[in-house]
Amino acid sequence: MIILGIDPGYERVGIAIIEKPNTGKENLLYSNCFKTEAKLNFTERLFLIGQEIDRVCIKYTPTLLSIETLLFNSNQKTALKVSEARGVIIYEAKRHALDVYEYTPLQIKNAITGYGRATKNQVDMMTRQLVNIPETVKQDDEIDAIATALTCAASYKNEKFN
Amino acid sequence: MIILGIDPGYERVGIAIIEKPNTGKENLLYSNCFKTEAKLNFTERLFLIGQEIDRVCIKYTPTLLSIETLLFNSNQKTALKVSEARGVIIYEAKRHALDVYEYTPLQIKNAITGYGRATKNQVDMMTRQLVNIPETVKQDDEIDAIATALTCAASYKNEKFN
Repeated sequence: MIILGIDPGYERVGIAIIEKPNTGKENLLYSNCFKTEAKLNFTERLFLIGQEIDRVCIKYTPTLLSIETLLFNSNQKTALKVSEARGVIIYEAKRHALDVYEYTPLQIKNAITGYGRATKNQVDMMTRQLVNIPETVKQDDEIDAIATALTCAASYKNEKFN
Repeated sequence: MIILGIDPGYERVGIAIIEKPNTGKENLLYSNCFKTEAKLNFTERLFLIGQEIDRVCIKYTPTLLSIETLLFNSNQKTALKVSEARGVIIYEAKRHALDVYEYTPLQIKNAITGYGRATKNQVDMMTRQLVNIPETVKQDDEIDAIATALTCAASYKNEKFN
């Protein structure tokens, strides 16, 4: 099973592809922090994000999308823009026939560290223990995308065991 | 010039296609209030909205998208969902190489009635004077989509004259 994990945004989109074998540890096949330039028209940035999701879906043929839900934000303008980007990402995934799963930050932290109020550092550390991540991967968005994909993989595992 | 006008939403999307001839009055080529069923998964509703925009772009080959911006809403949950739908609509338009124009409700009311605080009824009445709209067209969303397309057509006119 191949899972596309996304930490949504419009300046930076965390993208991860993990493979969940029938037994044993998940493998990280790809991760990136995809950036769009602030000087671009916002609709162009949305377009580039969708095209990148399209590219990754074609290359890695995931069957599930695991995407973080948006925390209610005090900055509504930012929240609306992130939502537009989320819409584009979900839509491209649906165009590639992926099933879509959404997880709150709390669910993700809980799945990765066992503690819903874990810090960024704790999530980073635990995520690196769960899969082999190159040391060059430093950005929160990228780690969060991997953590989001792993959360989906873990939910699947639990469903099988219950 | 063919303009796609959109009143965005996820339960109801107002869709209009107007043709702006070199001289004379605009023609309404198509309008609809596209609905998605509440019983569907939200991501499926987003998918259906995008597919409908795709269909309309293929059929009428518009070159401009004119879409209403979202009023800051007291219900943030609704606003985030409408934003996801807006993202999908803008993305499909960009995939079809449309240029995207966004107008606030105030700009649209102003363009159509000359008064930014016009009522729904006033917008409805004036829109029907600007283009021939079948009497069967009753829904606000559909009228608003036509008004949004006409606003874009009027801006073009003004740019030419200035």
